[in-house]
Amino acid sequence: MIVVMSLKASAREISDVIARIRSMGYDVHLSEGKERTIIGVIGRGRPLDRDQLALMPGVQDVMPVTHPYKIASREYHPDDTLIPLNGIKVGGPNLAIIAGPCAVESREQIIETAHAVREAGATALRGGAFKPRTSPYAFQGLGEEGLKYLAEAREATGLPIVTEVTDPQLVPLVCQYADILQIGARNMQNYALLNAAGESQHPVLLKRGMSSTIEELLMAAEYILSHGNMRIMLCERGIRTFETYTRNTFDINAIPVLKHLTHLPVIADPSHATGKWEYVESVALAAVAAGADGIIVEVHMDPEVAQSDGRQSLKPERFAAMVSKIRQLAPVVGRQVHELVGEQVGEHD
Amino acid sequence: MIVVMSLKASAREISDVIARIRSMGYDVHLSEGKERTIIGVIGRGRPLDRDQLALMPGVQDVMPVTHPYKIASREYHPDDTLIPLNGIKVGGPNLAIIAGPCAVESREQIIETAHAVREAGATALRGGAFKPRTSPYAFQGLGEEGLKYLAEAREATGLPIVTEVTDPQLVPLVCQYADILQIGARNMQNYALLNAAGESQHPVLLKRGMSSTIEELLMAAEYILSHGNMRIMLCERGIRTFETYTRNTFDINAIPVLKHLTHLPVIADPSHATGKWEYVESVALAAVAAGADGIIVEVHMDPEVAQSDGRQSLKPERFAAMVSKIRQLAPVVGRQVHELVGEQVGEHD
Amino acid sequence: MIVVMSLKASAREISDVIARIRSMGYDVHLSEGKERTIIGVIGRGRPLDRDQLALMPGVQDVMPVTHPYKIASREYHPDDTLIPLNGIKVGGPNLAIIAGPCAVESREQIIETAHAVREAGATALRGGAFKPRTSPYAFQGLGEEGLKYLAEAREATGLPIVTEVTDPQLVPLVCQYADILQIGARNMQNYALLNAAGESQHPVLLKRGMSSTIEELLMAAEYILSHGNMRIMLCERGIRTFETYTRNTFDINAIPVLKHLTHLPVIADPSHATGKWEYVESVALAAVAAGADGIIVEVHMDPEVAQSDGRQSLKPERFAAMVSKIRQLAPVVGRQVHELVGEQVGEHD
Amino acid sequence: MIVVMSLKASAREISDVIARIRSMGYDVHLSEGKERTIIGVIGRGRPLDRDQLALMPGVQDVMPVTHPYKIASREYHPDDTLIPLNGIKVGGPNLAIIAGPCAVESREQIIETAHAVREAGATALRGGAFKPRTSPYAFQGLGEEGLKYLAEAREATGLPIVTEVTDPQLVPLVCQYADILQIGARNMQNYALLNAAGESQHPVLLKRGMSSTIEELLMAAEYILSHGNMRIMLCERGIRTFETYTRNTFDINAIPVLKHLTHLPVIADPSHATGKWEYVESVALAAVAAGADGIIVEVHMDPEVAQSDGRQSLKPERFAAMVSKIRQLAPVVGRQVHELVGEQVGEHD
Repeated sequence: MIVVMSLKASAREISDVIARIRSMGYDVHLSEGKERTIIGVIGRGRPLDRDQLALMPGVQDVMPVTHPYKIASREYHPDDTLIPLNGIKVGGPNLAIIAGPCAVESREQIIETAHAVREAGATALRGGAFKPRTSPYAFQGLGEEGLKYLAEAREATGLPIVTEVTDPQLVPLVCQYADILQIGARNMQNYALLNAAGESQHPVLLKRGMSSTIEELLMAAEYILSHGNMRIMLCERGIRTFETYTRNTFDINAIPVLKHLTHLPVIADPSHATGKWEYVESVALAAVAAGADGIIVEVHMDPEVAQSDGRQSLKPERFAAMVSKIRQLAPVVGRQVHELVGEQVGEHD
Repeated sequence: MIVVMSLKASAREISDVIARIRSMGYDVHLSEGKERTIIGVIGRGRPLDRDQLALMPGVQDVMPVTHPYKIASREYHPDDTLIPLNGIKVGGPNLAIIAGPCAVESREQIIETAHAVREAGATALRGGAFKPRTSPYAFQGLGEEGLKYLAEAREATGLPIVTEVTDPQLVPLVCQYADILQIGARNMQNYALLNAAGESQHPVLLKRGMSSTIEELLMAAEYILSHGNMRIMLCERGIRTFETYTRNTFDINAIPVLKHLTHLPVIADPSHATGKWEYVESVALAAVAAGADGIIVEVHMDPEVAQSDGRQSLKPERFAAMVSKIRQLAPVVGRQVHELVGEQVGEHD
Repeated sequence: MIVVMSLKASAREISDVIARIRSMGYDVHLSEGKERTIIGVIGRGRPLDRDQLALMPGVQDVMPVTHPYKIASREYHPDDTLIPLNGIKVGGPNLAIIAGPCAVESREQIIETAHAVREAGATALRGGAFKPRTSPYAFQGLGEEGLKYLAEAREATGLPIVTEVTDPQLVPLVCQYADILQIGARNMQNYALLNAAGESQHPVLLKRGMSSTIEELLMAAEYILSHGNMRIMLCERGIRTFETYTRNTFDINAIPVLKHLTHLPVIADPSHATGKWEYVESVALAAVAAGADGIIVEVHMDPEVAQSDGRQSLKPERFAAMVSKIRQLAPVVGRQVHELVGEQVGEHD
Repeated sequence: MIVVMSLKASAREISDVIARIRSMGYDVHLSEGKERTIIGVIGRGRPLDRDQLALMPGVQDVMPVTHPYKIASREYHPDDTLIPLNGIKVGGPNLAIIAGPCAVESREQIIETAHAVREAGATALRGGAFKPRTSPYAFQGLGEEGLKYLAEAREATGLPIVTEVTDPQLVPLVCQYADILQIGARNMQNYALLNAAGESQHPVLLKRGMSSTIEELLMAAEYILSHGNMRIMLCERGIRTFETYTRNTFDINAIPVLKHLTHLPVIADPSHATGKWEYVESVALAAVAAGADGIIVEVHMDPEVAQSDGRQSLKPERFAAMVSKIRQLAPVVGRQVHELVGEQVGEHD
């Protein structure tokens, strides 16, 4: 940390700041300019609160020089974290393609969709059983019934399941069915939920909050990591800006930035990022070109009757066309789309 | 709802949209211009999803004409909701002055602060026992121990307690100690928590999410209201913008707007809105001038050693000076600051 | 400036950075921690580009420790700048009340409005002759004809004129008519215009750009100040955020912050800040309570037929009621609304 | 336009609104629901101001149903506009690759850079002679001298010149040297400049303002188009958001959205979008994958000594590597990078 004293700080104020820093177990390096004194904090002492120093008389500013996240940082863990998923390792050369409806609406719907996305090349199936909705009057998901249908869809297709959990109490239940716990954008700073997900030791897909900075996303991951749960995929799904033509603004910059700052895999969600199906393919291709480790996309057999997010859901044939383009593009950035080999589980039942 | 057909919509597409709307139990009013047809949806039918219509061939746009919130709306409930608090009614002429530390740090600290803010004119005491912190390594609050100290402070001063709950499982516990449950900005769309708070029938102070629209704040209130819990105070605490000089940007517009749209009381939090104590008084006065029903302010006996939010905490004497100015300003906007009468509970113990 | 070296910076990289800094005429203070080296730049040398240092091998970050603005800074000019306007000094105890229509629409309209706002207590008259409009097809103002009508209104009422200039070429023309040049939000970083306004030595009302930071506003003022033109009033008129219910989000924090950072007066524009007349009074009162040196408000005799901004214009009687409330509120924050004394110029002509 | 009356609007208020609409030459379509009346405005009358209707008693809301831009709209001009540039047609299958330094710093610098980017595959050369800078104390460009050096660089390499103009008075001068006038982000709503650029009939590269919506960008283009100047390339260069890790947030969504809404070509600027050279390649690839018609990139021979924007400038070899990747990626989205054939102009002089 660096403490910048104000122009008119007195010698007494400066020595008080130094004494405080030393009292916490740190060394001090003094840089006395003609106009202003700057104090560097050195070594490892007891936790030093930036605010506390900032309030001392004569202090103009206190500036951190390191990231607040540790385990998530590539500085401390240079190698990419790889997370096994249906025969590939997310974070490695194979792209993860996660697809499915916004919400599980019925047993038939989810099984039919699972087959459709598997054929088109999906690595995993997404589908919400517990839906966070802006309105209390909107469809809130099928709950545990939905989880059961997801498990059936997995059995029928072999696709692992990604599904959202919104309540810390429900983490054990959802873990019984899900291969990957999704923590949604609205819950990115729901620390009770992050702690529960950390303790579960279950793989997590952690979505960036709609107005969370990249650093806050990494701090949210740090909550999970601090429980020893290292299997986290970060998900960029668009941020809130002044632009209202699209549902969110996809922060494409965040993809190379995250790959630079952290070892965790980064998944892109072009469906929520745009909110309109006609722009999903372009943004999905962009995300892969920018270095994403995979995508998560909403696919619905019949978007016009979807109970939620129909506006941004692809039909299976458009999804298949998109995957085919991603397959072509991937090698340009050193990636590939894994071809599932062998019999499709349950296909001939 | 109004459905705007595109320039090139065919007669068939128009009749399909009409048929869909009618099939849901609505009437239709057709407005056929030279260039384009517009379809009005009339009456009350089954829930009609905007997205579903938007996806039908030939549809350009679908626009709602009513608010999505109902019970929160002043249109349906014109009179101000009044919430009793320590002898005043929040939402009426008396301003609520809620003050105290960010976090309960010790028994002595909270009791001493409670006395100090009571003397300066506070209506209620704030203090966090469960603290949501960006970093998993930061002080997370004293938990139930903190709640107990808060209860002691109430006993000593007569001040009712406002304290945050972050986990739906903890709502019953926190209700045992708190007079008002605070739901923090990060949890504004934590629906499991909103539902638990609604079911508790306990008064709630609901903070606006840092990037939530006014409409989303009202929808979050609607979650609580839909459980029959009408005692909600909304809290504007600043929103996230591109400006980084202050911690947040206080949305002063939101105060008259909320007073116009809803019957629920509106409280201002100038501490989080600015993040720097030197601007708190100006913004508190502004909030009252704009029509707020009260303020919630961070006060610490010694901000330089506060375990959190010291940078934005007022010392008791500055808080007292601020309340005195609010007292002078209030009558200009038809308000007053209630003088507590009679013995201060516990003062001479 | 402070240069933070990365964890793995080599001794050679460190000495290269030091050599570069010294070659520009600065001294260096070295702070060698166990983990990382920090280099302070001391003294006054040739302009040192932050980017250039940031690109040197081994450098992690470069942080400025001073503001980039100089003449605008209160650090270098502690006393408030006072700008004479119609018998008051803007920046002193008397509040400036600037009012009038968005655009000059006709001779009669501007003269009638001038009388109305003068009676209600206005210090100066606003009105646009050159209007920047989002659409090329919208009314663009009356041009020089509008300026002439403004001059007639000044003659009739004694009110000085505030009017916008949008083109550097037109600065000399507008100076012939206007008492105060307005530079609008869209032009806050139109440097050709800022330079022309600086050279004119005419008083300037400089509006904050809709997405400009406080620091950028002060840098824009610095352009004008660098020409020796010290008579600048800054104007907070709302910034662009994700909230769309109001036209802009009024940054009330900016008022005390600007008063702290600079000696220049700060004017609030609640009309553009809200975009809806029903919220103008609340925000105007808030701005005064927060420490603004005055307000600029849109007033129209008949908003329903206004050629622009009718939605946010007050009728004269509402404006008068608002001024009366401001008059009551002002003393709470050590201000007053000046009573114009003596004959109203031209009233009995 | 659609006028939504409020729940409690009286019959008289409704008939007044209808009379006003008819008086402007429009027809009216009435949709009388059980709760609320909605009035559709039909046909073509005199310009009807949304604000004026919104202010009439009983009116709740007024909603436009068409875009405010006309000539820029793909609805009115379905075919892509193609703009010839150095043997390719921007907007067609060949990608435009515009590269060069932020600012022209010297004759040698710009000529050397021109050769370097030409060899790497650039279609045109960028370089600023008039630089808009946040600080009045920063390097402001070489002015006309810089234009002359650009012309020499064109002569030496055959590369057409893209350079910024910031003052309407300078448009004729800049047109003498530039092949394409650049209008920068800060000037996107400088209407005097847009009009001057429109009148010049010179091709224009119009950058999106840092907080301008997509619709405002199209309205700015409409200013130029309304002068009959159809040769406009739009440029997405990142918008301002709460995220500060990167200089701006590149709005990748805007690329497919603009291609959908308008016939004008869309160029991406990954340098300003990120502000850090290490992320430029990823974002450039993403932009092409999303459908951009080209890129404009900052390249400097020695970024560490660049007088501006060094932090975001690529060295020529990195630029060449990036173009090579774009060349591979382009066919996936139906594009290509043109190979310049024949002698390089001036190479053997």
